[in-house]
Formats: sequence, C-alpha cells, structure tokens
Amino acid sequence: MELKPISFEKWNLRILDQSLLPEKEKYLNLEDLSSIVDAIKTLKVRGAPAIGIAAAYAFVIGIREELSKGKTIEESSEMVIQNIKASRPTAVNLFNSLERMKIKITEIVGENYSHKDLLNELVKEAERIHEEDVQASRKMAINAFPLLKHVRVVLTHCNTGALATGGLGTALYVIRHLYKARKDLLVLVTETRPLLQGSRLTAWELEKYRIPYRVIVDSAAASAMEVFDVDAVLVGADRVALNGDTANKIGTFGLAASAKLQNIPFYVVCPFTSIDSQTPGGKLIKIEIRSESEIAYFNGKKLVPDPNKCWNPAFDVTPGECVSAIITDRGVLKPPYEEAILRFLGR
Amino acid sequence: MELKPISFEKWNLRILDQSLLPEKEKYLNLEDLSSIVDAIKTLKVRGAPAIGIAAAYAFVIGIREELSKGKTIEESSEMVIQNIKASRPTAVNLFNSLERMKIKITEIVGENYSHKDLLNELVKEAERIHEEDVQASRKMAINAFPLLKHVRVVLTHCNTGALATGGLGTALYVIRHLYKARKDLLVLVTETRPLLQGSRLTAWELEKYRIPYRVIVDSAAASAMEVFDVDAVLVGADRVALNGDTANKIGTFGLAASAKLQNIPFYVVCPFTSIDSQTPGGKLIKIEIRSESEIAYFNGKKLVPDPNKCWNPAFDVTPGECVSAIITDRGVLKPPYEEAILRFLGR
Repeated sequence: MELKPISFEKWNLRILDQSLLPEKEKYLNLEDLSSIVDAIKTLKVRGAPAIGIAAAYAFVIGIREELSKGKTIEESSEMVIQNIKASRPTAVNLFNSLERMKIKITEIVGENYSHKDLLNELVKEAERIHEEDVQASRKMAINAFPLLKHVRVVLTHCNTGALATGGLGTALYVIRHLYKARKDLLVLVTETRPLLQGSRLTAWELEKYRIPYRVIVDSAAASAMEVFDVDAVLVGADRVALNGDTANKIGTFGLAASAKLQNIPFYVVCPFTSIDSQTPGGKLIKIEIRSESEIAYFNGKKLVPDPNKCWNPAFDVTPGECVSAIITDRGVLKPPYEEAILRFLGR
Repeated sequence: MELKPISFEKWNLRILDQSLLPEKEKYLNLEDLSSIVDAIKTLKVRGAPAIGIAAAYAFVIGIREELSKGKTIEESSEMVIQNIKASRPTAVNLFNSLERMKIKITEIVGENYSHKDLLNELVKEAERIHEEDVQASRKMAINAFPLLKHVRVVLTHCNTGALATGGLGTALYVIRHLYKARKDLLVLVTETRPLLQGSRLTAWELEKYRIPYRVIVDSAAASAMEVFDVDAVLVGADRVALNGDTANKIGTFGLAASAKLQNIPFYVVCPFTSIDSQTPGGKLIKIEIRSESEIAYFNGKKLVPDPNKCWNPAFDVTPGECVSAIITDRGVLKPPYEEAILRFLGR
C-alpha cells in the first residue's frame, strides 16, 4: 500500500492533515496561498521534503492569485516568496523549491509567453520537484541497503516516512525497503515530544506497512539501544552543513550522543538537496524556536506551573563527528564530509 | 518556605498527592497498609528516599493491623514486608527501610515487651529514618557546594526535591542550597516523560522557592546543554552499584551520554544508603517496567495507533564511567567507585 499524503489537482493542494493523526484520517483541500502557509506553520504538513513540495505547489497557487489581481509576474513572485519563506526557517528544501520556481520564471519570462503558459510551466516544475523526491526516496533505499542488510533492530526518531515527503520517505522508507529483505526487523520509535510525530505518525505508518515496532519515550532511547541491542540509528535531516553537522528534529543530537557512547552506527538519510554546501557548519543554521505552549499544554491540560518558562526549539544540530554516514539519493557520504560533499558536487 | 510532603500523625500517613500536582495541592490521609502500597504503586508518593520513608511508616501501620488481627509478630512482619516489597522493585531505599525495621523487631522481641511498646519503638525507628533523610539532604548540599560554586547553569532531570524525599531533597536540594550563594543561577528542567515529574513537580517546587528555571522536553537536553552553556548536570539515584553504575529515572543514561560528549560534569546526588555495595554492577539491578498505558494515553487521549506496542521502563542504568562524581551525605565519591565506596565503608 502507498499513502498519498500530498497531491495537486485542479488547482487544489490536497494534504492529509497530520495534526489529527492517528485519530482521524482527514484530507484538506487547500486552494489559496495563505491556507497552505498556515498548514505548514501549524504542522498539518511537515517534514523537510514534504514542506519543499508543498512550497512549490504553494508558489504556483500564489502566483495565480497575484496575477489574477493584476500584479506583474515580478511583483507576484516577490510577494509569494516572502510569504512562504516566513512559514518555517530551518528546512533547506523549502528554500530550494522556491529557488527553482524563481529560476523557472526567469527562463519563461525571457520568452514570448501568456499567463496561462507560465502557470502551466510552473505546475510542471512543481510536479517535477514532487516526482524527483519520490525517485530520490527509492534511490536512498537502494543506496542504504548494503550498509544495513545485517541490521535486525533499528531505532528512528520523529517521522521520516510517506507523511514527511512526497509519498515514500527518507529514513523510514529505507527501513521499509530493508524490511522486505529482513522480516525479523524491529523498529524502535521515539515518541518525539512535544508534538509526537513518532508515536502519532511513524507508528501509524508502520502499522499500515505491518512492520513490527515498539514506541518509547524519547528519553528511553539510550536504554533501549542497550536492552534491544540496536544495530543502527536512522534519522532524517532538515539541513546538512558542509562539515556534516545535521539540523534535524529536536532530540537527534542526544540520540547521536547515546549511539556514539555505545558504538552504534548513526545514519542520516536525506536527499542530496538537503545538503546545504553554502553553510560551512551547523552553528550557522537558523533554528526555529516554536511556541512554549507546545510544551506547557497537552490537549488543553496545563502541564507546568508557568507556561512562560519553557524553551521549545524545533530542531537541534548534531555534530558531523557523531554521524557515521549520510545516505543520499546520489550515494553514501562518509567522513570527512566536506571532502565527500565537494567531491559529489564535482568541485 | 519548607514543604511537608510526608508526615506521620496519629497512625495516619499524610502525603501530598503528587499525581495531582501542579493543578491541585491535595493531601491524603492513609490509614492502612494497602492504601499506602497503592499510593507507592501509583506514584502518589515517589522518589527513592520518599519511598523508603513511606515504606517505614507503612511497615508500622501494617504491623499494627496484623497484630490487631491476632497474628504473631513474626507472621505480621513477614506478611507486611512481602506486601511492601511488591510495590516497586528498583529503589534500594525501600529495601533498606524494611531491613532496618526487621532488625528493630529482632532487637525488641529479644526483650520483655508489650505490643504497645513494640509499636512505639517501631514508630520511633520510622521517624529516625525520616529524620536521617532530612539530615542527609543538608549534608549532601554542604558536600556538593565546593564542587559547584562556579556553576551558573545547571540541568536536572525528574524530581529530586522535597517531594521525592523526607522534605528537602537530593539533587534539587543541592541546587536550592547553591542558589543561596548564586542568585544568577538558572535551572533547566527536563519534563521527564511519561509522567512529567520534571514539568509538574520540579518546576512547581522551583516556583515555590523562586529559583529561575526553564522547562524543556527531555530530548532537548543535548541542545540545551550547548545553547545555555550548562556547567553541570545533577540527577538523583534510585540505586547505585559498587562500580558506580546508577539506576535512576529513565532518561538519565541519555543525559549522561550527552554531557560526556560535551565535557560537562555529570553528578549523581544521593544519600550514601542508596549505594548498594552488594550489587557489583548495574546489569544486576532489577528495572521496573511500568504499564504501556503511561505512554499510550495522556489524559484520556490515545497517542499511539496500538497501545500494546510500547515499552515503558521506569529507570535506566547510567554506566559509572559517565558519572563525574557521586555526592553523598558522607562525602563526595570519585572514580574508581568501587575503591571509593569500599574506603567509605571502611573495608
């Protein structure tokens, strides 16, 4: 079975509302830019690759809106890009998508074009971004396999599956692919506070795929690695710097530290486009700090004495030294990462 | 201000119900053994030292019940001990308390005694256990100070304050004492899933003491150590083995791994009686596995697709190699721990 958490039809972006899972499987039809931006901000659609795809479709929907109001293509593009960029700052995929759409516009605007032609071309480009993501997932899974074929127990964090991407996944799709060959596989799923993308989303996907799993609280990971004899930790990435420093869901850094102490391989799985070779190290990656209320309340219940005394970063940065390898659609990168990345870029 | 979360008056054990904090401050008057055992099992009273104290009072209340039914003192003692031991298996304090009460009985039974005298003596012994815990807290705080006086930002896990002990605390009382000298202190509090003893209890205590703090999700600890420039991590212990391996609230092991990677001192604070010199290493410590429902549900809301696919250990074991020092009422122990512990024991 394949999930279709994001699709574009008749100028509607159709997404599976991830904020309601696992209780409700409800699809939203988003027909204007502001509702897509809101869906990104409120994590109805989330995961770096999925955000990149949503941003591409949001771009075409936004351009259409602005053109219909009589704006020029340049004005429209500028306004739409600012609007989308303000949604979430960490995932590089969002910026990459917007960059590609902008380049596409430049290419077309140089020619003799109608608005209709322009919009058609932009839809095609967004669909290409989407399709490339699906193909990248397949390649990551194939590239990962030789590294993982001996693995019986794997630990993963957050959600990096169909829901986080164009329909297959990064780390979680690698796990799915591995499961085809290793029916004795067990997946340990960290619940991923505060928004529980692990227990709500990853467990929900694994249930659909009928892959054996156990959910643990995030802080049980170090113990679980030992007790369950974990063979590898697999996570996704929101942005990877040139030195291999990896911005990913909060908690990734701690998992890497625990894995390192126990000599367990720690793999980052991401499309090569999540590598930001313009950023030399993790300290330069902007980390989104989200609302304290995500920690202070749960389902309307107050969990802390003072909701203003929390700190809620969405991501952390795992030092490249803690990453055993970065598995991408273009191949497996090994340390030293700067060298490996530049080699892949042909520099 | 001093909290009085546990007290014994007129054959009632009066406890502050920790499962309702921070929303409600409700005291329970427990007058029979089974309600105390239930309060321990359901974490209405929790924290290794507090469990030890509750067990001592539970013992005298239980003995009185059994004697009143016409049982012999030996029968009563046997039955009560079995009953209390079945509540929670990891904290050594509970077993220590029962051992002391049993020895007390042997001492008295050798003499000419009435049941009334016996019960009076047992109450006195339980009160001594309670009072010794309070004194131990004061000594831990004094012993810790030279090690910590330079500390500006400290990270702590779970609750190790008044609520966890006879009225002062272990790691959290060390922090309170330090705050008297360091008014610029900031305490980072991990929420401590699944039952949130950090956000519910530690934050509640710090609020009462007016000590500045921030609550973070457990998995944000590694990042917080870096971003807030944490000077030391302080945790309690449920049981310390001879080699320094420390059983403590789930998540402690991961914090230790993160601290080690960042060269941040990691201190265990516990009364010397929490050191179990009969247990050579952590692998031999029995770890309580609690109900999966603690992870699967929150406040009635289902968080996972299948509540039977969770794993919920209450504790983990931090290797002695990750512990910079063990701060006790009898002094500060440094590695190698076996040597240090045996020296303190005069062996």
